Amino acid sequence: MRKLLLIGMGPGDPNYLTLQAVEALNRASVFFLPDKGAEKAELKTAREEICRRFIKSPDTRFVSIDIPQRAPAGDDYRAVVDDWHARIAARYEALLTSELADGACGAFLVWGDPSLYDSTLRILDRLRAQGLAIDYEIIPGITAVQALAARHRIALNRIGEPITITTGRKLAAGLPIDADSTVVMLDGDETFAKIDPADLEIYWAANLGLADEVLISGPLKDVAADISRTRRQVREAKGWVMDIYLLRRGGKAKA
Amino acid sequence: MRKLLLIGMGPGDPNYLTLQAVEALNRASVFFLPDKGAEKAELKTAREEICRRFIKSPDTRFVSIDIPQRAPAGDDYRAVVDDWHARIAARYEALLTSELADGACGAFLVWGDPSLYDSTLRILDRLRAQGLAIDYEIIPGITAVQALAARHRIALNRIGEPITITTGRKLAAGLPIDADSTVVMLDGDETFAKIDPADLEIYWAANLGLADEVLISGPLKDVAADISRTRRQVREAKGWVMDIYLLRRGGKAKA
Ligand SMILES: C[S@@+](CC[C@H](N)C(=O)[O-])C[C@H]1O[C@@H](n2cnc3c(N)ncnc32)[C@H](O)[C@@H]1O
Ligand SMILES: C[S@@+](CC[C@H](N)C(=O)[O-])C[C@H]1O[C@@H](n2cnc3c(N)ncnc32)[C@H](O)[C@@H]1O
Repeated sequence: MRKLLLIGMGPGDPNYLTLQAVEALNRASVFFLPDKGAEKAELKTAREEICRRFIKSPDTRFVSIDIPQRAPAGDDYRAVVDDWHARIAARYEALLTSELADGACGAFLVWGDPSLYDSTLRILDRLRAQGLAIDYEIIPGITAVQALAARHRIALNRIGEPITITTGRKLAAGLPIDADSTVVMLDGDETFAKIDPADLEIYWAANLGLADEVLISGPLKDVAADISRTRRQVREAKGWVMDIYLLRRGGKAKA
Repeated sequence: MRKLLLIGMGPGDPNYLTLQAVEALNRASVFFLPDKGAEKAELKTAREEICRRFIKSPDTRFVSIDIPQRAPAGDDYRAVVDDWHARIAARYEALLTSELADGACGAFLVWGDPSLYDSTLRILDRLRAQGLAIDYEIIPGITAVQALAARHRIALNRIGEPITITTGRKLAAGLPIDADSTVVMLDGDETFAKIDPADLEIYWAANLGLADEVLISGPLKDVAADISRTRRQVREAKGWVMDIYLLRRGGKAKA
C-alpha cells in the first residue's frame, strides 16, 4: 500500500511547524508540490524553503503538480468547486500512481491546517472512493485563525460563548444569527467594508507569519477604510494578499 | 518591564509543540505552573515533562500556583466565572510581582491554544487593566479541534460551509441555527446523548494525544450509547476525561 502524509505547515513562518511535522517531513521520500500559477509563487517558495531547511535525506524527490484553474464561481459554488476537484483529482491520481512506488511514503505540505478550508483531504477521499489504494495520515498545523488571535493577543471566544468560522461569501449574505465571535476567511471581496458596521469590532490581519504581516483592529466603522487601503497596498506590493479577521459585537474590543 | 509568554502546548502529546514554542520555552527564566488539584494531576505532569524535555538552562525556576476551586455554575455562568477569575487574578498578581524581577521573562504553558476557551489571557488583561505593568506575547498551539479532525482524518468544514465551535452548556440549549458543522468542547454532561440525534453524524474523541486516546464516529443515534460507555470507562480508569466532538447533519459522514 502507498502512504501519504498531509502535513500542516502553519500560516507562513516555518517556526509555526510542529515537532511532529518536522519528523513527518523526514518520513516521506516524495513531496508533491501543487503549483497554482504565478500569483501563488511565494507559497510555493515557502514550501520549498521548509523542505530545504528540515529534510535531511538527500534522496528525497520533489514532484510539481500543475493545478488547473478553477472556473469563476457562479451561482452554484459547490458545483464549480466539485468540478474543479474532479480535474485536480485526475492529475493527483496520475502522479501518485506513477511517482510513488507501492509501499513508499509521499507527502503534501498543506498551508495552515489540512482540516480547515483545504481541498487536499477531499481530493484524496475522492480518489480512495474511486478505488485508489492509498493510506494517509494527517499532521495538524497552526491555522491562520490561531495566528490571528495570537498576533492580536486576543481570545477567540468571549467567556462561555461560541465562535463561528466562515467565508467572505457567506458573510456577504449576513452575519451568522447565532454567532458571538465570527472569524472570516477566504474573503477576496473586502466584505467587511460592505456590511453594516453597527457596533462591530474587527481584528484584521494580512499575511500572518510573513515579512509583510500587518494587523489592524478597532470599531469596524472607524477602521474599515484603513483596512481596505492597507489590504490593497499589500496586494499591490507583492501581487497577492491573504487576510483574515474576527468580528464581534459591542463594547470593548477585548471584552 | 516584566514580560510573560503564553505558550500553547497543544492537546497532550509533546510532539504537538511548535518550533517557536520550543524556542519560547528557552527564553523564559521562570515558569508558572497552575495547580488545579488532584484530578488534573496528569495535565501538570504533562507540563512538567515538556519543561524537562525541552528546557536547556539549569537555572530555570518553576513556581506552582494553587488555583482556587470554581463555585458550581448556577444560572449566571458568566458571573461565577468572573468571580473565579478575580480570585485567580489576585494569586497571579502576588506571584508575578514577587517571583519575576523587573526586566525578566516568565511563561505559562497553556493546554492547546491560549486563544481557545482558556482564561490565562483574560486574567492577564484584567491585571493590566488594574495597573500591573507587564507585557506579554502569545505563542499559538495546536487546539483539541485540530487534533480531533486530524485523528478522524476529516475536514472540519464542508465545502464553503461555516464551522461553529461551542460548549456543551450552549449545545444543551439547542444546536446553533446557522451551523453546518458544530464542534463541541467543555461538555462534562454528555450533552450529545441528550439531544435529538435526528440525522446527525458525530466524530468524538477523548484524551487526544495521550496514551488512552480513543475515537468513535458514526450516526449519533447508533453510537451515542457506545460513546457514553467509553467516556465513563476512560474517566474511571484515570479519574478524569477530556473529550470533544463534531456534529454534522445528514448524509455521508465524510461528505
Ligand atoms: C484556502 S484557506 C486555507 C486555510 C488554512 N488551511 C488554515 O488552516 O489557515 C485560505 C484562507 O486562509 C486565510 N489565511 C491563510 N494563511 C493566512 C495568512 N498567513 N495570513 C492571513 N490569512 C491567512 C485567508 O483567509 C485565506 O483566504
Ligand atoms: C478549557 S478548554 C481548553 C481548550 C484548549 N485551549 C485548546 O485549544 O484545545 C478544555 C476543553 O478542550 C477540549 N480538550 C482539550 N484537550 C483535549 C484532549 N487532549 N482531548 C480531547 N479534548 C480536549 C475538551 O473539550 C475540554 O473540555
